[in-house]
Amino acid sequence: MANEPWLDEDEQQAWRGYLLMNKTLETHLTRHLQREFGLSASDFEILVNLSESATGRMRAFELGEATQWEKSRMSHHLSRMEKRGLIRKEACDARYPEIVLTDEGLAAIKACAPAHARRVRELFVDVLGKDRLVALGEAAGEVVAEVEKHQQTNCPPEIRGYC
Amino acid sequence: MANEPWLDEDEQQAWRGYLLMNKTLETHLTRHLQREFGLSASDFEILVNLSESATGRMRAFELGEATQWEKSRMSHHLSRMEKRGLIRKEACDARYPEIVLTDEGLAAIKACAPAHARRVRELFVDVLGKDRLVALGEAAGEVVAEVEKHQQTNCPPEIRGYC
Repeated sequence: MANEPWLDEDEQQAWRGYLLMNKTLETHLTRHLQREFGLSASDFEILVNLSESATGRMRAFELGEATQWEKSRMSHHLSRMEKRGLIRKEACDARYPEIVLTDEGLAAIKACAPAHARRVRELFVDVLGKDRLVALGEAAGEVVAEVEKHQQTNCPPEIRGYC
Repeated sequence: MANEPWLDEDEQQAWRGYLLMNKTLETHLTRHLQREFGLSASDFEILVNLSESATGRMRAFELGEATQWEKSRMSHHLSRMEKRGLIRKEACDARYPEIVLTDEGLAAIKACAPAHARRVRELFVDVLGKDRLVALGEAAGEVVAEVEKHQQTNCPPEIRGYC
């Protein structure tokens, strides 16, 4: 296998199909959030994470782990969201402020969540149906575990954040 | 269902698992291309499309359909790739030049393709195995068809590009 990486025709077709589904769904859901609620996919991701945390507040590095964004992207995006009043930074510790969901941010996520969930149900959950959905969730867990195993095995600690 | 969009616990878990798989795989594959071959995910996507077209040349709008990028993103990205010598624009028609894969662009995609395919096989194809892979490819086709149906039904032509 190390000498023959190429996918055969069925594998290639499935992989391309999977990529096309991801892109099609993501593009559609993102445009919907942007058009109807003025939120980017990045805004939505931060708001979901904060609103689901027990306290409505997280450190930037915790948001970084949850989103897998690079540090500079996180920093720039949080600044933009702060200017728009969706979050604020509370400096309990000057170097590592907590990121706090504002009332406005909470209102924004509450406003879009039902419409977003409806799209996800209509375009994904109901199309797959219960059995295929659960099977996909299981397969997804295995893939994530395999990537993590690969990183542990192949990536020295100093490049792990780029690996 | 129109009144009850929320996902139940199993559905939510599968949807989140699917999103995490997408993000984890995409982040990993993207960093690999960037680190080992100096190509961004966007570079790779354009190079794959051009190298698989019959003639190695496409119009920007065809690339736009294939990638689902907005016009301005495409235009900026193609300019950057042209500066790096990976593509060139040939103005058979001044308004709609053809985007042509250069020798350098072809060499770049040939250099990274085996290593990329090997990662896809190791982290996705072999983890799922043939049966689950084919089933996922089929499900993906159904989801894409459902999004397209939704767009035809719900999106007036003038906003279709944002829908």
